[in-house]
Amino acid sequence: MAFKFQINNDLKFNHRLDLLKKADENRPEIHRQTITGQALVKLTDDVTKLEGIGLEQEGTMADLASRKLSRDGKVIIDFGRHVVGRFKIHIEHTGSPMDAPLAVKFRFAEMPNELAHQASEYDGWLSKAWIQEETLHLDSLPVDLELPRRYSFRYVEIDVIDSSPKWQAVFSNPTAVAQSAVTTPTVAAPKLDDPVLQRIYQVGLNTLHDCMQDVFEDGPKRDRRLWLGDLRLQALANYATYDNRALVKRCLYLFGAMTTTDGRISANVFTNQDYIPDDTFMYDYSLFFISTLDDLEKQGEDREILEDLYPIAKKQWAYTQRYIAADGRVKADEDYPVFVDWSNEFDKTACGQAITIYALRQLIDLAKRMGDAEVTKYQEQLAKLEDYAKGLFDAKRGFFVSGPDREVNIASQVWMVLAHVLDDDANQALMKKTVEQLFPVRGIATPYMYHHVTEALFEAGLHDEAIKLMKTYWGKMCQLGADTYWEAFEPEKPAFSPYGSPIVNSYCHAWSCTPVYLLKKYGQH
Amino acid sequence: MAFKFQINNDLKFNHRLDLLKKADENRPEIHRQTITGQALVKLTDDVTKLEGIGLEQEGTMADLASRKLSRDGKVIIDFGRHVVGRFKIHIEHTGSPMDAPLAVKFRFAEMPNELAHQASEYDGWLSKAWIQEETLHLDSLPVDLELPRRYSFRYVEIDVIDSSPKWQAVFSNPTAVAQSAVTTPTVAAPKLDDPVLQRIYQVGLNTLHDCMQDVFEDGPKRDRRLWLGDLRLQALANYATYDNRALVKRCLYLFGAMTTTDGRISANVFTNQDYIPDDTFMYDYSLFFISTLDDLEKQGEDREILEDLYPIAKKQWAYTQRYIAADGRVKADEDYPVFVDWSNEFDKTACGQAITIYALRQLIDLAKRMGDAEVTKYQEQLAKLEDYAKGLFDAKRGFFVSGPDREVNIASQVWMVLAHVLDDDANQALMKKTVEQLFPVRGIATPYMYHHVTEALFEAGLHDEAIKLMKTYWGKMCQLGADTYWEAFEPEKPAFSPYGSPIVNSYCHAWSCTPVYLLKKYGQH
Repeated sequence: MAFKFQINNDLKFNHRLDLLKKADENRPEIHRQTITGQALVKLTDDVTKLEGIGLEQEGTMADLASRKLSRDGKVIIDFGRHVVGRFKIHIEHTGSPMDAPLAVKFRFAEMPNELAHQASEYDGWLSKAWIQEETLHLDSLPVDLELPRRYSFRYVEIDVIDSSPKWQAVFSNPTAVAQSAVTTPTVAAPKLDDPVLQRIYQVGLNTLHDCMQDVFEDGPKRDRRLWLGDLRLQALANYATYDNRALVKRCLYLFGAMTTTDGRISANVFTNQDYIPDDTFMYDYSLFFISTLDDLEKQGEDREILEDLYPIAKKQWAYTQRYIAADGRVKADEDYPVFVDWSNEFDKTACGQAITIYALRQLIDLAKRMGDAEVTKYQEQLAKLEDYAKGLFDAKRGFFVSGPDREVNIASQVWMVLAHVLDDDANQALMKKTVEQLFPVRGIATPYMYHHVTEALFEAGLHDEAIKLMKTYWGKMCQLGADTYWEAFEPEKPAFSPYGSPIVNSYCHAWSCTPVYLLKKYGQH
Repeated sequence: MAFKFQINNDLKFNHRLDLLKKADENRPEIHRQTITGQALVKLTDDVTKLEGIGLEQEGTMADLASRKLSRDGKVIIDFGRHVVGRFKIHIEHTGSPMDAPLAVKFRFAEMPNELAHQASEYDGWLSKAWIQEETLHLDSLPVDLELPRRYSFRYVEIDVIDSSPKWQAVFSNPTAVAQSAVTTPTVAAPKLDDPVLQRIYQVGLNTLHDCMQDVFEDGPKRDRRLWLGDLRLQALANYATYDNRALVKRCLYLFGAMTTTDGRISANVFTNQDYIPDDTFMYDYSLFFISTLDDLEKQGEDREILEDLYPIAKKQWAYTQRYIAADGRVKADEDYPVFVDWSNEFDKTACGQAITIYALRQLIDLAKRMGDAEVTKYQEQLAKLEDYAKGLFDAKRGFFVSGPDREVNIASQVWMVLAHVLDDDANQALMKKTVEQLFPVRGIATPYMYHHVTEALFEAGLHDEAIKLMKTYWGKMCQLGADTYWEAFEPEKPAFSPYGSPIVNSYCHAWSCTPVYLLKKYGQH
């Protein structure tokens, strides 16, 4: 995910070694699988695919070793599936003795359209360092080359910058060593007769699989970080499939161990070397620590983590108090923004109200499990928050309104439904009206927000509308060529990149994997 | 060196293991020396320097660690001397946690002007793979980075492609580990009162030092190969300075061990992995196997290598017979070209005649050392070759003429003088006339040819003219900023690159180091 950068260099963080130790105890074993290249392909014009770029097979893998590549010689290898892992290839030379090094660039792409863009053209605000390519100079051949970094890819373009006029490079045996914390789902897939839904489910499963690494990563190509908002959805998708609870516990312990000294939980933590909480904070993400802990407990009570982390969850709630007025109104604060979605084109005040209620319900559940006497206080505050929220419902317009301009937007209705501020009938009526009057969704590029819209439809009993939205959103990604779901997708602008170029887009991004959860929970109508 | 590529894939080579074993026995120990960065510099406009590009100090090394570099941040480190070796640097980050890899490019330059050119602009015929730069993606910092390849450089440009908007890269402790087969000269330097000559000598010594590696390399930046024509000059320069005879013997054994099955000696051999003779052959370079062996013996008889390699030298001569007519005329052959110089703008027939005589004199010396009865036959053939050569002297014009058009060129006079076809007085007269009528030298870009012109002046007793030429040629390189002498330099076109861009020029090239030999042998008048 991405938004305005926060820089808070002066923060102090706790580092609870007892909790970090438990995070380590729940560290997953990484499973590795060797995948061989499947075909040689070339880019083609194809209006049905993302950015109008499709693929065509131009050779078998056996043909690769007969290609003699010299200056500007290129070939694209298709591994047939999305892979997170290392890349290996054998390189020899043919012709006269090697009178120069081999200079070769490897470009890794999750989607074909990435290969139609050059790194040199990218000047977006996101770091160029994420562009998945390596240029190597090899002084001697043959070599069994194994690149030392991890990439996220289905396609590898080999681009020979130069050999010499006297010899050519010959590549063979391209291999990917795919890695994940999980192998096979342990929870049965939902019975889906519709092949479109079957595909939607499978691509979601691939996405989750490839994001489950040493932690739940947001995207294995880019960021590669544990974000709380993404974790909440990944955990739900995980319970419905691989059901690796240890990995969820590991991630919760990481967040819980490294709060700020004033009690806040970072929106994300870095884990690729030392464990480091980021200096970025979001109101809703912090509250989802409570939600994620409660969701875990609902899978089957785990007393140890509950006792370890409930105090942290409580502190998070305590910190939130400064944003809740006596009358139950949640006050927005620029320095502790409510994320909801990338778009800043809609007012998020009502969403903040609803998410606070959503999280408090789960805190109350945790408090009951803990036998915490403060549960009464929480219930009293919940009533105030709900009362205030109900006041945001404009009976005349039939929608919740948000902010000083009393704006009506989809997100507000969705989160009010998910927070169950109204009763079930009213929720259904609200979502019907939302579909009738506010659909189609416009200006939303995140599967994260689409997830909540879809879930609200299901929660409101509008199964067919939910399935329809799922097909037009995740189904559309499948049509456009997705093997895994994307960080960003705006159906009305399929080629939209929040970064100015798809070369830094993440086409396997955790917060988009939720069809596996939605179809499991609601799909078998 | 460079010229038209020969490709001869169907050749068969001998691999005499007994001789290769001796090549290995003479393998040098590589000495390493740690050099620290000296200053931070920036490019400036300076019409007195090569390509009009000079340098200005912009900081001390202590300043480096205070530079915080993010996207497009650059700094140039000056190591204060030319170095062949590895590069190391410490890299940290400052600011928020590392939310992206560091993408950084290192560019290595022997001369400042190289840094004014970009690899992307180069489209010459020589392999782009020689361009000394590396782009790395570092997923975690801090790191003590040591690049695994060897470079030839004085300057290192650090070019941060990107960090992220939240943090910057900090570099410190740049270090070069310089390597050479030799350390300190063991032969006393000539006494030179003239500071210009002192500088000319020192730069030649640097050049030789940096080209003496596992073999005598032609250029440590590019090619990095053992060429016979370069070896002959390097060996002479070496006897006058470091006097590492084992390295000469190693190289002679390598050439001698891997002749073609029909007796030819390759113009060069590859040694960076297996020992591989190149499929390139040049008439004069092959004959210089004889010269180089004889030059070694003249330093002090070495019976073992003489007995090992004299038979190879003889075979080379035997192969040459097909190019020598009964009347002593040397016949040119396109497939076995006489190199003499890069330029193909002058006729090389007379040079071929002279070089054949030059080499045969040395074969006769070897034959006498060996007590070979064939010496008489060689002497008879020498007389014929000389007679034919004398016939090329056009008494009316006062010059040797070359080829069917009876062309008069400098190279012909030079090589006829070096071959001592005329007596000493006639040689002096010839070189005087050459200076008067054919100077200044034009259209010659190789120090290799300038060496022979200068040596011919010395051999003809024209000491002042030789010193003058040395100052206008090697001295001019010094003025333009050379720390080591260049592969190519045409004084009338200082920025000339045979490759279309200085980015692949070799600015430390063995065949240019000979001032150390010329000044030692002839300089103390």
